[in-house]
Amino acid sequence: MTHKTDIEIAQEVQLKPIEEIAKQAGIDREDLEMYGNHKAKIDYQAMDKLKEREDGKLILVTAITPTPAGEGKTTTSVGLGDALHRLGENTMIAIREPSLGPVFGIKGGAAGGGYAQVVPMEDINLHFTGDFHAIGAANNLLAAMIDNHIHHGNELNIDSRKITWKRAVDMNDRQLRFIVDGLHGKVNGVPREDGFDITVASEVMAILCLSNSMVELKDKLKNIIVGYTYDDKPVTAGDIKAHGAMAALLKDALKPNLVQTLEHTPALVHGGPFANIAHGCNSVMATKMALKYADYVVTEAGFGADLGAEKFFDIKCRVSGVRPSAVVLVATVRALKMHGGVAKTELNDENVAAVEAGLPNLMKHLENIQNVYGMPAVVAINKFPTDTAEELQVIEEKCRALGVTVVLSDVWANGGAGGEALAKEVIRLTKEEHAELHYAYELEDTITQKIEKLVKKVYGGKGIELSRGAEREIQRLEALGFGRLPICVAKTQYSFSDDATQLGRPTDFTIHIRNVRISAGAGFIVVLTGEIMTMPGLPKRPQAEQINVDENGKISGLF
Amino acid sequence: MTHKTDIEIAQEVQLKPIEEIAKQAGIDREDLEMYGNHKAKIDYQAMDKLKEREDGKLILVTAITPTPAGEGKTTTSVGLGDALHRLGENTMIAIREPSLGPVFGIKGGAAGGGYAQVVPMEDINLHFTGDFHAIGAANNLLAAMIDNHIHHGNELNIDSRKITWKRAVDMNDRQLRFIVDGLHGKVNGVPREDGFDITVASEVMAILCLSNSMVELKDKLKNIIVGYTYDDKPVTAGDIKAHGAMAALLKDALKPNLVQTLEHTPALVHGGPFANIAHGCNSVMATKMALKYADYVVTEAGFGADLGAEKFFDIKCRVSGVRPSAVVLVATVRALKMHGGVAKTELNDENVAAVEAGLPNLMKHLENIQNVYGMPAVVAINKFPTDTAEELQVIEEKCRALGVTVVLSDVWANGGAGGEALAKEVIRLTKEEHAELHYAYELEDTITQKIEKLVKKVYGGKGIELSRGAEREIQRLEALGFGRLPICVAKTQYSFSDDATQLGRPTDFTIHIRNVRISAGAGFIVVLTGEIMTMPGLPKRPQAEQINVDENGKISGLF
Repeated sequence: MTHKTDIEIAQEVQLKPIEEIAKQAGIDREDLEMYGNHKAKIDYQAMDKLKEREDGKLILVTAITPTPAGEGKTTTSVGLGDALHRLGENTMIAIREPSLGPVFGIKGGAAGGGYAQVVPMEDINLHFTGDFHAIGAANNLLAAMIDNHIHHGNELNIDSRKITWKRAVDMNDRQLRFIVDGLHGKVNGVPREDGFDITVASEVMAILCLSNSMVELKDKLKNIIVGYTYDDKPVTAGDIKAHGAMAALLKDALKPNLVQTLEHTPALVHGGPFANIAHGCNSVMATKMALKYADYVVTEAGFGADLGAEKFFDIKCRVSGVRPSAVVLVATVRALKMHGGVAKTELNDENVAAVEAGLPNLMKHLENIQNVYGMPAVVAINKFPTDTAEELQVIEEKCRALGVTVVLSDVWANGGAGGEALAKEVIRLTKEEHAELHYAYELEDTITQKIEKLVKKVYGGKGIELSRGAEREIQRLEALGFGRLPICVAKTQYSFSDDATQLGRPTDFTIHIRNVRISAGAGFIVVLTGEIMTMPGLPKRPQAEQINVDENGKISGLF
Repeated sequence: MTHKTDIEIAQEVQLKPIEEIAKQAGIDREDLEMYGNHKAKIDYQAMDKLKEREDGKLILVTAITPTPAGEGKTTTSVGLGDALHRLGENTMIAIREPSLGPVFGIKGGAAGGGYAQVVPMEDINLHFTGDFHAIGAANNLLAAMIDNHIHHGNELNIDSRKITWKRAVDMNDRQLRFIVDGLHGKVNGVPREDGFDITVASEVMAILCLSNSMVELKDKLKNIIVGYTYDDKPVTAGDIKAHGAMAALLKDALKPNLVQTLEHTPALVHGGPFANIAHGCNSVMATKMALKYADYVVTEAGFGADLGAEKFFDIKCRVSGVRPSAVVLVATVRALKMHGGVAKTELNDENVAAVEAGLPNLMKHLENIQNVYGMPAVVAINKFPTDTAEELQVIEEKCRALGVTVVLSDVWANGGAGGEALAKEVIRLTKEEHAELHYAYELEDTITQKIEKLVKKVYGGKGIELSRGAEREIQRLEALGFGRLPICVAKTQYSFSDDATQLGRPTDFTIHIRNVRISAGAGFIVVLTGEIMTMPGLPKRPQAEQINVDENGKISGLF
């Protein structure tokens, strides 16, 4: 086992020029826009040329309910891509971009880990190709135009107490969660309560990730509801006349970004909406493009499968038409022990009983993937040195009952070579097993029916309880004609239930719906359970204190 | 005369690949980092290889006191570069980047005009290579870390009422000028008064533009004063431990950006500090780099020569060691008429007397350039169709008395061909005339002496009046050891005096100093006269309403 940090490993590898990676992937040079020597954007017009080409096979990587022990979903995604590539398969990875904010907090980087990373990791973790800055600018242009409209006479009759559109900054900055702005007299705006979200939580991000083209992007931007008039009519970005300029700001951000892994597998790293109040996976454009260039595309979805995979299937697949051929469910022995009731400090000791006690969490996710969504699956155990043969055996036995193979993945320490067994099982699944996507609910269901179906089928709860406010808002949204949209549940990622302390496989629980709100641009209804944080804060000793750059521009302190 | 808009003209020209422009300029391919096909960054390490090379000649383009009639300083700078290039001189242009904010307001683009533009103008006017976003992120990381420090116990004893560091956004957003943040209970920060500046007004921008290297950048960032403790000791970005991560965010932003003009002259477009509370010219790195690659480098300074050229000489030249060989003073007949008392609606009528009445403004700027700063100069009249021979003649006569040639510049309509006469005179000046830079004040002068010298020598006023607050702050800054820094006057650009209505060449006026403040990182003392706006607002009908992008990513509505 290595003791090098992620950034040290990443900086030791000799990257190939991105033009070479593109060539190897079959991307025409004329469709490539370079960003330095190791990053490039691919023009969306490339898709026109690829229309007739058959799609490759899409592999979704998801995970059990996350615990503080960690799972390694991105690491497994990257490592699986490298393994497929090593086996001679024409492979592309399609994952989300990291947000700048958390890099300075405790999280460090988010581009994989160990010997399974996408690179250049410093760039990917910092500004990358500027997509998130563009999204923030588009978000904030709309905000400035709303307040400017009110300042100059408010022709649209906007009720400044009912503005739902917030400003955005790609920074963990709790100080900006709740503010009062427009202070200091009539030349300086209109005083009102306001607030900032982190950029990844902006609806603009969700829109960018769900758009199939520039035209669709502009349409969706136009439909954003920014607030309500004094007589409760929705006001849109189109009413504010902001959508054209917002789209202009996003013209390059919409183009997928090409990078490589440490083993030179091509990777499209593009988009990154919040996995909570949005659908949490990489862009539709990048996924579709990857499917045209490659025979195998590895992608991932945020949080555990109840949130990430659910939204991947019920929102992303539904609106884009992409269809996965197999699902990889990532778990660690350590995390299963936590689901089985073991404290974080005692994860290093063998504890077969605890693993067994935690397994129902994994089994429920597997059942959902197979029975609700109709997908063949493999379980990938992301290997830790403390895992024992007995612990692994009990996992294998339980999964075998569902006809699912368990594979040990050692990509963190060994890169693609550590993922070959996983890759072989994935290939087998795509060839020998049948995948036919079903949804957990239908668009024709009422909003309440949709929530109930999700809770009963996917979470395993017994029902829902709507607050008075939620009930009223559901009625209002259905009256406004938004009843047929898919739903996007914002729920704690740490439990199937809405109570973060209920690990394992809770049953008989009720999900409490605090409120619902409309993302009319992105095209879904957000269902809020509990308080959802859309602006993180920094810890007492932020990682930013350790980050540095030397006289040659070499960065340290990312991990 | 054409009726095409700037963006239409720009989009008709077939750009050369930026690699070709670089090659022609003598830039090694290995020092080039591509941003698409028509933009590139030049690694600052290129400078190491160029150390031994002799510097080219630097031409500063400045202007008379601006009026609503317009002068065309950037257009003249670009056109002069094209003209020198046409004449076979090895030429490079080095100008500032436009800010995103004003593009959506009334200003439209800021990349030259007509047939004298830098391109791709859409990209340059929008995100370009992301420099301003990086500067905003560095600015806001520091802000988040300050409030986070206070939130987590405030070990440094920062008085939250004395925080001077503001947040930044590259948007005209008056609503954010004065805010209260940290509201809504103890988990959401510490309530305090706060505010946002537009990104170009951030001290980080000034620092980036005044740094000779990454090491110097980091030092300057470390020295930023962000506020004061309860016992009035300065707190720096270094105390907050933010400077390393800030520098990491700026590692690419520090690299100059290469683009081309419509006539394929290489142009470094880099940095863009406020010309008001900062020094207002492009980066030292870009200027120095251009001087190594080219025999003639054309650069410009913001506002009229009393502000822009003054700061260029007294701050930028002093701290960087760069020395111009000649100065171009841009004027228009129309603007001179306004200085002579004519209303904006009557500028189309010939009015020799008004031109003559307005000429003292031009003469005072010329005298400053020649007598205060020791520079040879040429006057460029940016041609309008309404100019008459008689009007031009009176300008020529007056200038001849100072030994200065007046040249008609027609670059807006004719590109480089319209600037050949100007270019020839510039070449002559650099060969036949002597340039020996003097400063308006010495660093050893006290702060008050520096201000007095500027007012008397450069503005032509009779003295200064300090507010009680300014007097106190000057004493405090001198006690803290900042007395030897250059000064940066924030004053209306519309008059030599501090009264925007005093056009022409006012005399006998007093400059009222409202306050002074320290930019300890950038290394100057800002002298505030009157209220200085560091966050613009949008007009009733923002240009953003007209901006659009089509399905192929082609942008319209910029001008």
